Amino acid sequence: MSVLVVGTTALDSIKTPTAENPRLLGGSASHAAVAASFFAPVKLVGGVGEDFPPKYLALYRRHHIDLAGLQTMPGKTFHWSGEYESNMNNRRTLATELGVIETFSPTLPKAYQSVPFVLLGNIAPALQNHVLNQMTRTRFVVADSMDLWLNIALPDLLKLLKRLDGFVLNDSEAHQLTKTDNVFSALKKIHALGPKYVIIKKGSHGSILSGPKGFFICPAFPLSKVVDPTGAGDSFVGGMMGYLAAAKGPVDVNIRRAMVYGSVVASFCCEGFGLNRTTKTRHGDIKKRVKELEKLTRF
Amino acid sequence: MSVLVVGTTALDSIKTPTAENPRLLGGSASHAAVAASFFAPVKLVGGVGEDFPPKYLALYRRHHIDLAGLQTMPGKTFHWSGEYESNMNNRRTLATELGVIETFSPTLPKAYQSVPFVLLGNIAPALQNHVLNQMTRTRFVVADSMDLWLNIALPDLLKLLKRLDGFVLNDSEAHQLTKTDNVFSALKKIHALGPKYVIIKKGSHGSILSGPKGFFICPAFPLSKVVDPTGAGDSFVGGMMGYLAAAKGPVDVNIRRAMVYGSVVASFCCEGFGLNRTTKTRHGDIKKRVKELEKLTRF
Repeated sequence: MSVLVVGTTALDSIKTPTAENPRLLGGSASHAAVAASFFAPVKLVGGVGEDFPPKYLALYRRHHIDLAGLQTMPGKTFHWSGEYESNMNNRRTLATELGVIETFSPTLPKAYQSVPFVLLGNIAPALQNHVLNQMTRTRFVVADSMDLWLNIALPDLLKLLKRLDGFVLNDSEAHQLTKTDNVFSALKKIHALGPKYVIIKKGSHGSILSGPKGFFICPAFPLSKVVDPTGAGDSFVGGMMGYLAAAKGPVDVNIRRAMVYGSVVASFCCEGFGLNRTTKTRHGDIKKRVKELEKLTRF
Repeated sequence: MSVLVVGTTALDSIKTPTAENPRLLGGSASHAAVAASFFAPVKLVGGVGEDFPPKYLALYRRHHIDLAGLQTMPGKTFHWSGEYESNMNNRRTLATELGVIETFSPTLPKAYQSVPFVLLGNIAPALQNHVLNQMTRTRFVVADSMDLWLNIALPDLLKLLKRLDGFVLNDSEAHQLTKTDNVFSALKKIHALGPKYVIIKKGSHGSILSGPKGFFICPAFPLSKVVDPTGAGDSFVGGMMGYLAAAKGPVDVNIRRAMVYGSVVASFCCEGFGLNRTTKTRHGDIKKRVKELEKLTRF
């Protein structure tokens, strides 16, 4: 089955203590769509400006991503620039130019509306709701978000939460949303807002699922060098949704393994700037790291 | 086989946002010895003052801990008081009164010197070296430490590291010792200082082992309420050493499971002030949580 991915399609200028890379392909939808494409056909919903480099369209196409839902609009592509500290955990936004994304309000192509697996990647929750309104036969809907929307669009986000099967957020966002420091009591409070599956991402510490079958402690793949963590969270949820769309059987049974696959795709994402390393990854590389994670966690 | 445990035997006055508990039984050796006692006979090395409450001696005895190496000296017992913030991760030392520990330099009872499993719990590295000098037939020697010793006794600690089989430290100490932010590259640098087994503790995120058989990602048991994390790290390493001393076969084969048992004992430690919850734990409770952790990590 296919995965519909909506989110930002952006240009990222990323600075780390050792390097600087301007105008890379980035955005939540780009990372999630490429990650999902390793497992299942992907339909992308996004908006770019006239300055969007054709080579990035070619990159999507190499991953067999359906671009019927990618609109090119008059104006500039969303551009984010940020800087990482040496521990690669703390990042600082240097500039955000919304460009065409500011007025983006997509009408989905007919063929998109019946896609069963829907990933509402990080973008304004009003837009996530708007996309979801157009879907007719969803089987599993997951959304990601960020602190910005908790701050400036909480009512829209709370409305969205009631409509989701799964919600993915990081630990600091979980604390912000629930006013709870403890991850496990935060999870309970987030379930009460709607989603049956809640996943809290903890970066290099892995992630925690709380679902109908209880908790799952999902490991992160050990990396001794992180080049650029931008998009790792999007790659995680993209890989997970791609795996789920391709797997036989109920979500309940497959979601743990799906998270591990997502975690591995995220590890490749961290090993290069932007999508540089992810796009060079082969399915065999992913399988190999999943096997390694099995060994690394067995006792 | 037995475990020798040396470290501080202290009185802890602990303040959290919701409660205050003065003069609890604490110290690295107390937590580690009680944790180890669930699995193997324990011989304790420590020094207390004349003010040490007899009820705490009774507590050690209830755990069948050999007290031939516990000296009572003229003066006061080491007293630490500290305060936790609401997230239970950041703590602030309010006062440290060294008391008798300042001049403590134990001569081990004869029966202690041939114990095969040695846990050098957190205390001055000069004293850890001094105890190790008296051991004649060690099979597996592990030390724990803290930021204080990295700051004021690094040469002694580096000398100790060369003599250890295993070293346990937390992530911030690993960064301090190696000037490396990445846990996995820090592990490599710590191996170069001596120990074949290095374990980095990450609190509620679990721990990481690096040993002859590679990495092991050890989970923490999910707790939705942490009452007092003081001594959790000591309980972890104590439980691990107790399990190893009791298990048949080589350390290499048993250490992953030993860490999981240690992790579970640490989870009980966090559920009460001081040793209140740990001492109420039964072996069956520990086994049950280990089984749960197996389920929580399987994919």
